[in-house]
Amino acid sequence: MSSPLQTLKGFRDFLPQEKRERDFVIARLKTIFARFGFEPLETPTLEYASVLLGKYGQEADKLVYTFTDRGERQIGLRYDQTVPTARVLAQYQHQLPGHFRRYQIQNVFRADKPQKGRWREFTQCDIDIFGSTSPVADAEVLSCVYQAYSGLGLTDLRLEINHRATLIETLSPFATEAVNVMSLIQSVDKLDKLTETQVVEELVAKGLEAAPARSALAAIQAAPLSSALAEIFSHAISLGVPESALVYSPTIARGLDYYTGMIFEIKTPTYPAGSLGAGGRYDNLIQDLGGPSIPAVGMAFGFDRTVEALRELGLLPATQAAAQVLVTYFDDTTLRTSLEATQALRAAGITVTVYPQADKLPKQLKYAEASHIPWVVMIGSDEQAAGKIMLKNLATRSQESLPLAEAITRVSAGN
Amino acid sequence: MSSPLQTLKGFRDFLPQEKRERDFVIARLKTIFARFGFEPLETPTLEYASVLLGKYGQEADKLVYTFTDRGERQIGLRYDQTVPTARVLAQYQHQLPGHFRRYQIQNVFRADKPQKGRWREFTQCDIDIFGSTSPVADAEVLSCVYQAYSGLGLTDLRLEINHRATLIETLSPFATEAVNVMSLIQSVDKLDKLTETQVVEELVAKGLEAAPARSALAAIQAAPLSSALAEIFSHAISLGVPESALVYSPTIARGLDYYTGMIFEIKTPTYPAGSLGAGGRYDNLIQDLGGPSIPAVGMAFGFDRTVEALRELGLLPATQAAAQVLVTYFDDTTLRTSLEATQALRAAGITVTVYPQADKLPKQLKYAEASHIPWVVMIGSDEQAAGKIMLKNLATRSQESLPLAEAITRVSAGN
Repeated sequence: MSSPLQTLKGFRDFLPQEKRERDFVIARLKTIFARFGFEPLETPTLEYASVLLGKYGQEADKLVYTFTDRGERQIGLRYDQTVPTARVLAQYQHQLPGHFRRYQIQNVFRADKPQKGRWREFTQCDIDIFGSTSPVADAEVLSCVYQAYSGLGLTDLRLEINHRATLIETLSPFATEAVNVMSLIQSVDKLDKLTETQVVEELVAKGLEAAPARSALAAIQAAPLSSALAEIFSHAISLGVPESALVYSPTIARGLDYYTGMIFEIKTPTYPAGSLGAGGRYDNLIQDLGGPSIPAVGMAFGFDRTVEALRELGLLPATQAAAQVLVTYFDDTTLRTSLEATQALRAAGITVTVYPQADKLPKQLKYAEASHIPWVVMIGSDEQAAGKIMLKNLATRSQESLPLAEAITRVSAGN
Repeated sequence: MSSPLQTLKGFRDFLPQEKRERDFVIARLKTIFARFGFEPLETPTLEYASVLLGKYGQEADKLVYTFTDRGERQIGLRYDQTVPTARVLAQYQHQLPGHFRRYQIQNVFRADKPQKGRWREFTQCDIDIFGSTSPVADAEVLSCVYQAYSGLGLTDLRLEINHRATLIETLSPFATEAVNVMSLIQSVDKLDKLTETQVVEELVAKGLEAAPARSALAAIQAAPLSSALAEIFSHAISLGVPESALVYSPTIARGLDYYTGMIFEIKTPTYPAGSLGAGGRYDNLIQDLGGPSIPAVGMAFGFDRTVEALRELGLLPATQAAAQVLVTYFDDTTLRTSLEATQALRAAGITVTVYPQADKLPKQLKYAEASHIPWVVMIGSDEQAAGKIMLKNLATRSQESLPLAEAITRVSAGN
């Protein structure tokens, strides 16, 4: 059934090209996170199962990988980054600053049914500000998200933003014993995928009459921007988010019932496949998860989807080359000069791979091409005698004998 | 027994300061690896247990974390990076280049007894060249290791190098039925920790006579540099390794019996606690592990020990600041100007955190100090009216009212 030389279903290898793309995105995100004062945090892959279970309900618990170790401890694999962070906030309360901004980029594990775009191990990327209920903290998150994505080259970014209080205040008058306000919110949240008629049908199926169901939808669609949200918008604009990117969306609800204030998703029409990330304020969750009583606002980047969007939009650098230069192994009489040239190129910051044995030259060139290496340095006895090197540009097939220093200049400029 | 809000024994959280140090070392290593044409690879945390077990013997198997998942599959957690790479080399044989240089920096898991410096989850950092038996490949690994460590600021680096063939040829004449040549090698390997007398005693206890035991030690200590190793040394020197860093050490043996050629450890007398990394050539291992028949040479960086050495030697940057600048929340009338200043500072590449609420100024300054933030920007109504900002240097306690552009220049220069 299971071939021994395969990855498990739902798990992935990242070969060099894809790994470089992912590392590029992570490096860019980290630079922006640092610019906003977010600090890095790492927690272990394994935790006591009791830390992880019972936090997000029975359905989530079923997706936590758990096992018993040789010491009879119940162990769980990291399921998200918020629960371990709640543990960290409790465990190191007195070491951490009162206002703590942290980012965390680690893999999480879900024993979920694998399907397109859904993996059992995947990278989560979270930023959160702990310890403040201020709308400035909300605006900082929005500004960081906007700048992170626009820094990656994404355009037409839209932060679709709502406030949980607007939903509750607007929809509460329509709640009944059969359909409470959370149930109403969950149906409203589907308005981006279903038609109004379908949502009304769902509410009727839940036990609401059709007329109040329609009125509820009309009411939420017409709900005005609250002063709380207006203040967050104003701060976000001061922090550099263009006004046009802040889209008040009264029907955005985010199914998760732990949000207590602002909620948002980030989208772009240039990649309509779905939201690239989402977040909001969750002032009670850290305590509910076993941490201290500490307000929080933050968001999760959809890392896989973001990488996919950047790839589709051509926004990832062409980094498929294993190196900028291949130094060939011409023959043993010129090997030493070739290796010294290698070292000189590297000392100039150029990435170089050395062909390790004296294979025929066409084979060495073929290797360079297959590895997308743009430049080849060859040193035969003529070049060695003349104190030069032969520099070949594989794209143009042109080659020229020139001093090493000049080759360094040319390769550095060509990249 | 197990408090729910603790890490498991043998596992670690990395709070921001330590995480930044580790990320710094990783970033520097990656730059050097890329310069040598090593490409990044990532494999899943979980594998079929059958991929991981039975590779390094029964003792190692006991240390592999294994469990049965809900689909009744036998699962194992990554135990090292070589076994998954052997699987990758088999699984993607036709996609990967004939000469494949890869680096891999991931966490591995060992159900080992936790003790000082030994963790159940720790970072491994490996570089390897697959597909060539050439001494140039060996020299490339030595050169990369040397440049990686010297690039981190370590001095007096010594690559203690030997060749498995020298050990076997020199010690074989002393092997007996009771003490075969591998057993002799394992005892010789202890000469860096035990005295000669103690090693002779060990060999006698194993069943060798004292006289041949002493002769064996004398023979290996006097064994001349082989021509194979001399060639590797010569190439390494061409590739930039100082001759003084290449130390032929005929008694270095590396216990692991899968090495087939060069073996080495890297040390520095400035950090005598032990070797910082080790490696060698292992031309049969990939096939033994279930991969294709492919020669290999590489090494593993002792990541935790390297970070510890750099910290002890003061070679890690003072990166404990959460940001370069704290922008205070003075009052609501100047908040907008403060947030706009924040955005301008960030646009200039400066890392800035905003104090999110209007606490008393001494409390905000205390927060900056506790977070090691060196500069504070304050905008009161006077500064706002004058189109200036107040820049305070927390180290000197001096402060000055000046235009924002000037503050940007000063903060950028001060870091």
